[in-house]
Amino acid sequence: MIAIDWGTSSFRVYRLDGTGCVLEMRSSPQGVLTVENGKFSAVLDTQAGDWIATDDGPVVMSGMIGSRQGWLEVRYAACPAGFEEIAAGMRKVIWGGGTAWIAPGLTCRDEAGIPDVMRGEEVQILGVLHGLGPGTHTICLPGTHSKWVEVTDGRIARFSTHMTGEAFAVFKAHSILGRMMKDDATDITAFEDGVRRPQDAGGLLHHLFGVRARGLFGELTDAASASYLSGMLVGHEIRSAYGKQGQVNLLCNVQLAEIYGRAFAVLGIEASALDPDSVTKGLFRLAAYL
Amino acid sequence: MIAIDWGTSSFRVYRLDGTGCVLEMRSSPQGVLTVENGKFSAVLDTQAGDWIATDDGPVVMSGMIGSRQGWLEVRYAACPAGFEEIAAGMRKVIWGGGTAWIAPGLTCRDEAGIPDVMRGEEVQILGVLHGLGPGTHTICLPGTHSKWVEVTDGRIARFSTHMTGEAFAVFKAHSILGRMMKDDATDITAFEDGVRRPQDAGGLLHHLFGVRARGLFGELTDAASASYLSGMLVGHEIRSAYGKQGQVNLLCNVQLAEIYGRAFAVLGIEASALDPDSVTKGLFRLAAYL
Repeated sequence: MIAIDWGTSSFRVYRLDGTGCVLEMRSSPQGVLTVENGKFSAVLDTQAGDWIATDDGPVVMSGMIGSRQGWLEVRYAACPAGFEEIAAGMRKVIWGGGTAWIAPGLTCRDEAGIPDVMRGEEVQILGVLHGLGPGTHTICLPGTHSKWVEVTDGRIARFSTHMTGEAFAVFKAHSILGRMMKDDATDITAFEDGVRRPQDAGGLLHHLFGVRARGLFGELTDAASASYLSGMLVGHEIRSAYGKQGQVNLLCNVQLAEIYGRAFAVLGIEASALDPDSVTKGLFRLAAYL
Repeated sequence: MIAIDWGTSSFRVYRLDGTGCVLEMRSSPQGVLTVENGKFSAVLDTQAGDWIATDDGPVVMSGMIGSRQGWLEVRYAACPAGFEEIAAGMRKVIWGGGTAWIAPGLTCRDEAGIPDVMRGEEVQILGVLHGLGPGTHTICLPGTHSKWVEVTDGRIARFSTHMTGEAFAVFKAHSILGRMMKDDATDITAFEDGVRRPQDAGGLLHHLFGVRARGLFGELTDAASASYLSGMLVGHEIRSAYGKQGQVNLLCNVQLAEIYGRAFAVLGIEASALDPDSVTKGLFRLAAYL
């Protein structure tokens, strides 16, 4: 089969064998937002037309390709959702070169009744479910919009999104805090200081200003300031999202797993990293429901 | 005397009579950051040289003119501080046209030992101290960097800064949330919904993403989204900063007093507005210590 992870800013296509193992992979920067005039089929033909023509398995895609800006808007499935609910929400696109299925995203509501959404991460999670086994598990997918996901007995029970990475980027590039910052290497001590910060009263909007005030007093160097800000935001995310006992399973690349691992260690929370290449496993298992 | 409020982006000079009443005022957009090559004396000569030449009282300035980017960096006085401590920190600049005094800013440390600073607001507060009388009072100066100030028996005991206005501006202009937003009029209902939001679990980084998710589901219109975001941030500020019983005294222009007044009403906190033109009173009383 052909498995495709088509996000906002990147495109990855995999040819899988009959057991779900990756035979070949191709990637391109042709993310959904870079494709003009909705010419998604042309990108797919160019990137994988030869594979699709010769492979006798299905073509299954996940990610922002199913969003309003993508090929076909596929309605979010509602939590709790496992393989059956997500597979039931898949929709088909047909073009000259073939037929492909697009996975739906997921939605849920928090305690306050406010909606939340994900698109793409749910298939990564499907890919690790088998390894996690029964019971309740917490999965953290850090990033621009970090996702915290609670899985119970093979289904995604609920999740919450935290704008940690995007908040870091906009404060660094566009706020008064960014005036101190360059593209310095991560300063682990400053990052860990930042993680510790939210323990104290005052709230995040106050803690942010402390980055500047510490700089004015020479208590934080310019070179360490971005790492301190990053730690502060990551610490705030973890404290807000981690509500229970138990281990957190990190699902992300090794760089993010390393930095979040530091934050979990500072906060005394047990964490371990899952296989970051889980999206092909999720798409492979989803294809069995077609 | 001549009283000058010289901030980052604006310059205001007042001629006061012997009782502190304003006889005349002039303003200019020549804030500290717009003055090139440190030519502050030239601006002052142009704006108020005639007044300074004929007035026999002192020239007293407050605001960012005393910062590292200003005319002379004047060291922050430390809390607790009242008239005496702040007056003791004033420093003199001398130029061809005369002599002027610059008030120091204020600094304190929060429970976690992290420093905080203000420069300019302390003189506005000195201007309202007489009206507040003895005892402990909470003053809120909303804005780009909101200040929450605790005054006890005529001295500023402590304060904290919250980057509320700047966070709103950067998320509106530079984050994914801003894609929904135009320069729409304030939607009071949406603002109040936002103020209520932080009561629920999840933390600010999660609540921010809810602006987008509510928009995706048609539960928040594009036109109301900026007001909802604003209310969310103001609500977060107030909940984090307001730690005690008692009334909050707002020190700001009438537009901000109106919007913050709504937020306090939603949260059941008693608030009233102080005279926003207090800086001349503060500078007048400071001049008595020279």
